[in-house]
Amino acid sequence: MIYAALLGLGVVGSGTAEVLTKNKKLIEKKVGDRVEIKYILDLRDFPDSPFGTLVVHDFSCILNDPQVTVVAEMMGGAHPAYDFTKSCLLAGKSVVTSNKEVVATYGTELLRIAAEHGAAYLFEASVGGGIPIIRPLREDLAPNHVSAISGILNGTTNYILTQMETEGTPFDEALKQAQSKGYAERNPSADIDGLDAARKAVILAAMAFGKRLDPNAIPCEGITTITAEDTALARSMGYSIKLIAHTEQADGKILAMVSPRLVPLSNPLGGINGVFNGILVTADMVGQVMFYGPGAGKLPTASAVVSDMIDIMEHSPSGIHAPVWTDADEADVFEFPGYTCARLLVFQATASALDTLTARFGSLHSLQLAPGRLSFVTDPLSEADTDQRISDCGLPLVSRIRLL
Amino acid sequence: MIYAALLGLGVVGSGTAEVLTKNKKLIEKKVGDRVEIKYILDLRDFPDSPFGTLVVHDFSCILNDPQVTVVAEMMGGAHPAYDFTKSCLLAGKSVVTSNKEVVATYGTELLRIAAEHGAAYLFEASVGGGIPIIRPLREDLAPNHVSAISGILNGTTNYILTQMETEGTPFDEALKQAQSKGYAERNPSADIDGLDAARKAVILAAMAFGKRLDPNAIPCEGITTITAEDTALARSMGYSIKLIAHTEQADGKILAMVSPRLVPLSNPLGGINGVFNGILVTADMVGQVMFYGPGAGKLPTASAVVSDMIDIMEHSPSGIHAPVWTDADEADVFEFPGYTCARLLVFQATASALDTLTARFGSLHSLQLAPGRLSFVTDPLSEADTDQRISDCGLPLVSRIRLL
Repeated sequence: MIYAALLGLGVVGSGTAEVLTKNKKLIEKKVGDRVEIKYILDLRDFPDSPFGTLVVHDFSCILNDPQVTVVAEMMGGAHPAYDFTKSCLLAGKSVVTSNKEVVATYGTELLRIAAEHGAAYLFEASVGGGIPIIRPLREDLAPNHVSAISGILNGTTNYILTQMETEGTPFDEALKQAQSKGYAERNPSADIDGLDAARKAVILAAMAFGKRLDPNAIPCEGITTITAEDTALARSMGYSIKLIAHTEQADGKILAMVSPRLVPLSNPLGGINGVFNGILVTADMVGQVMFYGPGAGKLPTASAVVSDMIDIMEHSPSGIHAPVWTDADEADVFEFPGYTCARLLVFQATASALDTLTARFGSLHSLQLAPGRLSFVTDPLSEADTDQRISDCGLPLVSRIRLL
Repeated sequence: MIYAALLGLGVVGSGTAEVLTKNKKLIEKKVGDRVEIKYILDLRDFPDSPFGTLVVHDFSCILNDPQVTVVAEMMGGAHPAYDFTKSCLLAGKSVVTSNKEVVATYGTELLRIAAEHGAAYLFEASVGGGIPIIRPLREDLAPNHVSAISGILNGTTNYILTQMETEGTPFDEALKQAQSKGYAERNPSADIDGLDAARKAVILAAMAFGKRLDPNAIPCEGITTITAEDTALARSMGYSIKLIAHTEQADGKILAMVSPRLVPLSNPLGGINGVFNGILVTADMVGQVMFYGPGAGKLPTASAVVSDMIDIMEHSPSGIHAPVWTDADEADVFEFPGYTCARLLVFQATASALDTLTARFGSLHSLQLAPGRLSFVTDPLSEADTDQRISDCGLPLVSRIRLL
């Protein structure tokens, strides 16, 4: 018999209990042993839940029970989730998690502690919900040097952008719709300002390149400045605007960033709409592979949590070849002003400004003129160079969105 | 030091040697040991290949060398690939393969022999080329009951269908283009008649449901009857025609089949064009996830072969929880005449036939009239029922294509 404990009986926690219960037979067959949830830690009581009798309020009864060997942390937030995780790993208990904040912030330390104490720390559910991505990066793509990963990693913002693009809904209205459907929190900042995606970008960068960046320090723009006019304009040029978490290694330096991007409709990420997520990996041997599916939700995320639990129960923790991360220092980090890509620029201007713009930007691609608006796509230019040219041309800028 | 042998120095074999050489440092770091190719078996000599000195012509020198613990079989064809694989496994050597014919035909026996002799038999490269799908089914989706898998699993036919749809190219011409680009063999039968996809469907069905069907006995239609008119008509109705390998479990019976299908453009498989493959998995906890990428090609397929080699070298074979298959008997197989789906039917008929057709088919969806042609989508009907109704209406049938 293998005893597990769950930390948190919120959405993902109750989903995990449900998966472990509903598919108990299947899971026990794979594991080759009986699997029992012994405790569920939560501050609240759940008298009406079928799992209510398992609820405890005191973490120490889990930590001090030697029968518990696998712990699933689904509390959300950095504390006490990090502290409980660390205590479990120090005690040699393996931990799986859906908590991207803890993985992105403390992953290096927790992976090291796990390795030192014969435990495993797995986090398939922390990126892309139910979509397999962490294990495929570690195992299926093991023979490859990954060069870049671009992902739609936040379903809330993708839903909002899809509504804006397909229905012409203004941002505020689309956000309200997302909230009423339960896709967005009452305080939506972590989603719409990009921090949620930034944490996931940091985790993917660390999986690909072995270095953990600071999720609060990477370049991060949300979607609050995107208008329905932008999405319509992009569409007319053959692009869809997506919030893209992007990481790449260039000249030995690592870039991780989040920003809205014009994605060509021919790119597999260009057709991913609504709350779905997609992650496109570019690697030297395999070329490009994409993983697509539900990036959030109770049972999909729980499926990923339980796949990690099964992994630990099937193999001993020492049989799982965990990644080794180090925290990136300044020399590892790509200097963002040098980041080069093409951009859509929209100026408040008329045709009379074309000479000025051509003088500053050279070729103006996909040029569009509308009353009082002049839009075009630039050649690939660095961030710093783009700033300079925009400033030099002396025209009011309305929108500036990178291409993928 | 771990010694490996490769069977076959064709496209995938030379790709595998290239991956193992180019990314040697990366691979050895993951494995935690040195990895050396000791032999490459081929009938030919390769005096100009960098791997030419490793080539041997006698299988027994591999079989009898106790240093060789991992063998990658990339010979193609059933024999002697099956025989060599079996000999290796009986000798306790683990085997990985890209050979879908061997896996689909002899997988049950070879997995059993591997388990009995402390070896592993892995075949990530046998379906979807470089796309991770076999390991994700085994590990990432482990907590799920898979209910269905639908895939575009043959790049050659997808290239041909894409050319027909986007360029209006006739089938024969599109096939010639595929051949001149090296996407299709000179004898293209296994691709265009669907057998290649059928073998992959059988492997996916066995991974999902534990039962191996006979790849030569499953319902299998290729794309030779599809015309550019069909693809244009489908497009006008919001569909793309794809050769779909499909497997599902219904009422405890297993269906695996290959046929052209009208795929809604809103389905993630609907946008997969050219030589790319995509595999959509439906499972009870995760919902739907899709895996997309290069379904063939030297280095992508080799990437999958080497990922399996690394898996064996990282874990001992006993640390790999291999699937257990049994060969399906008649009672396991879904009776195809009962298979129910909607279909596009194109009759040689005029508007005067509408009364007859409505009497036979009830609702006619997406009805289109063209000179001498009457096209519509039926309600979901069984195969047998559809046969009967077509026969009853007494009109010449031009096309009949299932919807996904």
